[in-house]
Amino acid sequence: MVELPSKSPALIVDIHTHLYPPSYVDLLSSRKTVPYIYKPPDGSDPRLIILPSDDDVSKPPASRGRPIDSSYSSLDVKRAFMTQHNIAISVISLANPWLDFLDPSSAPSIARTINDDLQSSCSNFNRSNSDQKLYAFGTLPLSAPPAAVIAEITRLKSLPNIKGIIMGTTGLGAGLDNPALDPIYSALELTSTLIFLHPHYGLPAASFGGESSLSRTGHVLPLALGFPLETTIAITRAFLAGVFDRYPSLQILLAHSGGTLPFLAGRIQSCVAHEREFTANGGEKPGPVRDIWDVLKKNIYLDAVIYGEPGLKAAVDASSHDRVMFGTDHPFFPPLKDPAGRWESVDTNLKAIEGAIWSERVTRGILGGNAVRVLGLEV
Amino acid sequence: MVELPSKSPALIVDIHTHLYPPSYVDLLSSRKTVPYIYKPPDGSDPRLIILPSDDDVSKPPASRGRPIDSSYSSLDVKRAFMTQHNIAISVISLANPWLDFLDPSSAPSIARTINDDLQSSCSNFNRSNSDQKLYAFGTLPLSAPPAAVIAEITRLKSLPNIKGIIMGTTGLGAGLDNPALDPIYSALELTSTLIFLHPHYGLPAASFGGESSLSRTGHVLPLALGFPLETTIAITRAFLAGVFDRYPSLQILLAHSGGTLPFLAGRIQSCVAHEREFTANGGEKPGPVRDIWDVLKKNIYLDAVIYGEPGLKAAVDASSHDRVMFGTDHPFFPPLKDPAGRWESVDTNLKAIEGAIWSERVTRGILGGNAVRVLGLEV
Repeated sequence: MVELPSKSPALIVDIHTHLYPPSYVDLLSSRKTVPYIYKPPDGSDPRLIILPSDDDVSKPPASRGRPIDSSYSSLDVKRAFMTQHNIAISVISLANPWLDFLDPSSAPSIARTINDDLQSSCSNFNRSNSDQKLYAFGTLPLSAPPAAVIAEITRLKSLPNIKGIIMGTTGLGAGLDNPALDPIYSALELTSTLIFLHPHYGLPAASFGGESSLSRTGHVLPLALGFPLETTIAITRAFLAGVFDRYPSLQILLAHSGGTLPFLAGRIQSCVAHEREFTANGGEKPGPVRDIWDVLKKNIYLDAVIYGEPGLKAAVDASSHDRVMFGTDHPFFPPLKDPAGRWESVDTNLKAIEGAIWSERVTRGILGGNAVRVLGLEV
Repeated sequence: MVELPSKSPALIVDIHTHLYPPSYVDLLSSRKTVPYIYKPPDGSDPRLIILPSDDDVSKPPASRGRPIDSSYSSLDVKRAFMTQHNIAISVISLANPWLDFLDPSSAPSIARTINDDLQSSCSNFNRSNSDQKLYAFGTLPLSAPPAAVIAEITRLKSLPNIKGIIMGTTGLGAGLDNPALDPIYSALELTSTLIFLHPHYGLPAASFGGESSLSRTGHVLPLALGFPLETTIAITRAFLAGVFDRYPSLQILLAHSGGTLPFLAGRIQSCVAHEREFTANGGEKPGPVRDIWDVLKKNIYLDAVIYGEPGLKAAVDASSHDRVMFGTDHPFFPPLKDPAGRWESVDTNLKAIEGAIWSERVTRGILGGNAVRVLGLEV
C-alpha cells in the first residue's frame, strides 16, 4: 500500500475579527456619553458602554456595559489568538459603533487618524512577524458631508494594508436605502472598495416582547436574533431601493453569513414578484430591477460566522462557494470555562466548514483562499 | 432498450392553505373595528382590514386593507386550486388574526362554532369529492380563561377532520414565553395536538426605517421579512424560556419553513453557550436545558413555503427530511399576470423541492408523505 503524502494544512484567513486601535480607545475614553469607556471611580476595571441600554447609572459599575480588556486593543493578544487557532492572516476591523456618533466637523480628521493607526498597526505587526499577516478594513466619517467621506474613501486606496471599509446598517443615519448615500456608493464602486456591513443597532425592544422578556435571557435575543435580523433588513432595504441596479459593481461583505439573507432570498424575490404596487406589476412604485439571487452571486460576499452546517450550506448555496469566507468575531464569544483553551465559537465554525461534504478545493477556499483572492492579500 | 414503467405521480398534500369558513366571515363582517370586513357605502367590493395600519379612513375604500373575494371562503375555489396544482389533500386553517381579538366571554362559543364549521366544511367537501380530501387546523379561544381553552383543545379531538390548531405568535397576548401558557402547552402535549404557529403581528415600523421606508416598498418588508422574523423571535423566546424542557413532547409546525430558525439555530445555540447570565455558565438566570438542534429534530416541523433551494435545504438539514411538508399559502400570492394560470408562488416551491438532489423517497415525503404520517391523514 502506497502511502500518500500528507496534505499541506489549509491557509486560514480570518476576515471578521475586531480590534480597537489606540486612537479609538483614546477617543472612547475621552467621552462621557454613549459610546464611551467608563472608568469607575472605585478603580475597578473599565467598562465599554456602547448601547443606550448599557448606560444605566443605577447599576453598579461592574454590571454596566461589558468589560473592556486588552483583548479589544492588543496586537499581542490578537497574535496569540491567531497562533492558537492556526490563523495565518487576520483582516481586522473596528467593532461597532465605529464613528457613527461623531460630530460632522470632527469626524473626518478622526477617521484619518484611526485609519492611519490601523495601517501602522498592520505594518508593525507584519514587520515583526514572519508567519502571520495583518490587514484591516478602514472606517469612514459617515456623519460628515459626502465630500469628506469620498475624500477618505479615495485616500484609503493609498494605505496598502486597508482592504475595504466597515460600515453599520444605518449608513448616514437613515438606512442603506437613503438616496443621500448614492455619491458614497458611487465612490465605493469606482474605487472597488469592499463594504463590510456589520450590525450594531439591533431591533426595538418591543420586537422581543419588551424589557421583561429581554431581561430574562441575558444578551441572547439581541445578539442571536437582533444582529442578524438588523443586517437582513438593512441589505433588503438597499436591494428594494435599487442600490444594486444603480451600482451594479458594488461589493458588500455581510457579517454573520448575511444575517438571514441566504435563507430568506426566495421569499424576498417572491414578494417582489407579487407586489402590485411595483411598476413591473402595473403599480406606481419603482421596485428593484435585478433579482436578489443575481445580487447574491455578483455583489454579496458572506462570512462563515454562522455556527452550523445548515446555515453555512445555505450561505454557499445562495451566493457561491467562492464568495464565503471564514471569520471568528474575535474578541467576542470567548470560552467561558477554559479561558486559555481553544475557542468553542471558533471551533464550531471550523467544524461546520470541515464537516460539510465539499471538495478540498471548496473547503480551502472558504477557510482562506477566497479571502486571499477577493481582498488581494499577500500570502 | 427496455422502457421503464412510468412512476406514479407523488401524492401532494398542502398543509399551509387558508380558508375563512362562513361563520368567520360573518364574525368579521359584524365588526366595526380591526379586524373586520369593510363594506364600502358606495357598493364597491368589500375589503379585509386586519392590521391597524390598514384601517385608514382617509384612504378611498378601494385602497384600504385588501380585497376579500370568494378565494378566501369558497370551497369550490379551493377545490379548483387543488385540481389545477394536483393537490390531493389540503389541511385548511383560518388566516390571521384568528380569534386573538375576541372578548374573553364570547371567545369560547365563537371558537366552537368556527371549529364545528371547519369540521362540517371538510365533511361536506369530502362527501362530494372522491379524488380530493380536506382536513383542518382548528382555532382556540386564547383570550378566554385557560380552562375554556383547554376544554376546546379536548373537544377538538372529537372532530375527526381537525388535525391540530393554528396559533399566532403572541399566544395569550404576551408571547410564547409567557408562563401563563403552561397549562395550555400541557393540554396540547397531553392530547398530542400539533400547533401550527403562524405570524401576523410583524415587527414595529421602526425596525424597517419607519413609515417612509415602508411606504416606498409596498408590502414587501412586512411580508418578506416581518413575518418570518416575527416567527423566529416567537419560537426562540419559547425555547429560551424552557418551554421544550417542560413540555418535551410538544409538537409545533412553523410557518414559512420556520421563519429563519433553521438558518439561525447555530447562532442561537452559540449565544446560549456563551451567555454568562445563565446558570449553566455560573449566572443566575435559568436558560434552556435542551439544545436547539435537538428541539428542531424532535419538536419542530417545518412547511416548505420558502421559495428557494438554499432555504429549503437548510430547513431539511436543520430538522430532517421527514419533518418538512409542502404548503402553498393559498389564497395569498396569486399570479398577477395570468389569474387563470398555475400559480408562480406554488411552482417556485415545487421547483425547489423537485430541484434539490434528493432520493425519490425524500421528495415524496416532503410533497405529501410526511404530512400523511405526521397528521394521520387518510389517503
